[in-house]
Amino acid sequence: MSDYSKGVAFIDQKIVPIADAKISLLDWGFLHSDATYDVAHVWRGKFFRLDDHIERFYAGMKNLQLSISYRPDEVKAILCDCVAAAGLQNAYVEMITTRGMPEAGSRDPRTCTNQFFAFAIPFVWITPREKGLHLFISDRQRIPAESIDPTIKNYQWLDLVMGQFEAYDRGAESVVVVDAQGNIAEGPGFNLFCIKDGLLTTPAQGVLEGITRKTAMMLAIEHGYEVTPTNIQPEYARAADEVFVTSTAGGIMAVIKIDDVIIGNGSIGPVTRQLQDAYWAMHNHTNYSVEVDYQK
Amino acid sequence: MSDYSKGVAFIDQKIVPIADAKISLLDWGFLHSDATYDVAHVWRGKFFRLDDHIERFYAGMKNLQLSISYRPDEVKAILCDCVAAAGLQNAYVEMITTRGMPEAGSRDPRTCTNQFFAFAIPFVWITPREKGLHLFISDRQRIPAESIDPTIKNYQWLDLVMGQFEAYDRGAESVVVVDAQGNIAEGPGFNLFCIKDGLLTTPAQGVLEGITRKTAMMLAIEHGYEVTPTNIQPEYARAADEVFVTSTAGGIMAVIKIDDVIIGNGSIGPVTRQLQDAYWAMHNHTNYSVEVDYQK
Repeated sequence: MSDYSKGVAFIDQKIVPIADAKISLLDWGFLHSDATYDVAHVWRGKFFRLDDHIERFYAGMKNLQLSISYRPDEVKAILCDCVAAAGLQNAYVEMITTRGMPEAGSRDPRTCTNQFFAFAIPFVWITPREKGLHLFISDRQRIPAESIDPTIKNYQWLDLVMGQFEAYDRGAESVVVVDAQGNIAEGPGFNLFCIKDGLLTTPAQGVLEGITRKTAMMLAIEHGYEVTPTNIQPEYARAADEVFVTSTAGGIMAVIKIDDVIIGNGSIGPVTRQLQDAYWAMHNHTNYSVEVDYQK
Repeated sequence: MSDYSKGVAFIDQKIVPIADAKISLLDWGFLHSDATYDVAHVWRGKFFRLDDHIERFYAGMKNLQLSISYRPDEVKAILCDCVAAAGLQNAYVEMITTRGMPEAGSRDPRTCTNQFFAFAIPFVWITPREKGLHLFISDRQRIPAESIDPTIKNYQWLDLVMGQFEAYDRGAESVVVVDAQGNIAEGPGFNLFCIKDGLLTTPAQGVLEGITRKTAMMLAIEHGYEVTPTNIQPEYARAADEVFVTSTAGGIMAVIKIDDVIIGNGSIGPVTRQLQDAYWAMHNHTNYSVEVDYQK
């Protein structure tokens, strides 16, 4: 019997154990990072904001001139099937479209048959909810919008990965990179927020418009805070009352240290805690959740 | 019997038909474009400047903190074995190192086992030697050096691929993208040269330091031309006497039209022709070639 407990993938129209999840070495998704993707998560048997993720996924495909034969509701069903097949109550679920392979001898992407992949693996945390993250602000620049539209979720992360190595060298756990003006941009898979005197700020542009970012903004406004997307210089973040990051991989997670500076009192701040609680409570709202049918 | 005639790959320490050449969907080489590579070619049974390609490949790995268990001479032997197994007299041969997969649940690249891959497929031309290319100059920016060092050969090509679609929309065959100041940078897999009044120019920075670029510069100097790496604005290129591109995928290839402007008289110019002939002649020099042993 195949081992599905470590996760499964949907490839070539069938579900396989994650260990068998492979893509051709010649697919431009690999050779040219020519792909878009999205990641949704399942918490206690329910997808969170799945429609939003699927909507962004299709918008990204359209923008990159990629298309697949599945309708959004079919993708939704495939993702649910993956999670059910793996039997995961808490899961990290990725959907991917790659350019595929051009015809033999051609370098024309229009000759490619675009490929759809999906996989579901156990839930991934950027940092455990109760822990708090130590961030390093690198002076490496995030790939600018003039090169690649950052609102299209893409795999061009070499800047972020190399920034992560810089963070390790300085004793930090993760990194944020900046824009050409030195404003904070984003980290590997997360957006950043600062809280100062009751005002929430988050980088306005040059970043992925994260669905957890959108959720955090909505929850903050509901809880009576003002939220302003703007430019954030590193010194502003280091002097903030609270800092948190947002990601599908862990939700709202406190930052307790930036570079060598302790943020607030070095533990999860009250506003971050409030938004974190509201975020996880929201997972039970039927408006935002899709139940996985594990018996199917 | 397996079909090796369309090419082969070296994966998991063995040679397989190219159709079976797969990489894990979870390898960061795919998920984060966290990889480096190089491409050498075989012409009439001989590798061209293979040591230069392997040297750059190892330099790229070092820079990205990637390492493999093979020494350069072992990689060389693997590439020769691939070409011999495929029986290709003219081949496009790629060597790749990816980050690999982190430990389950981890996002720490330091926990990854880096992976080595290679493949050999029939020779690929950006454009046939005798044809001449119609280029479009996009105002899309090449990913800047402040984000990713362009001298490390990398797969972050979404800017180039999207530029290619823009080129098709305008009736051109390929694209060059620019830097933040609007200077010409490079195209998908090639460097660019202009020739005006006997002076050869090529973009000085923000580009891959191509081995064919280096070869073209050397040959031009040998033939008595002055070569100056510098900033090149689009209007300078459009007004040049001759323009050519350089790539392992085709060598030195004339550009006969840029945007809507015919270059020179719209055919391969005399200097380009001279350098092209010298380039192919160089493939027989024992200093620059490694013979493939097809009988082994």
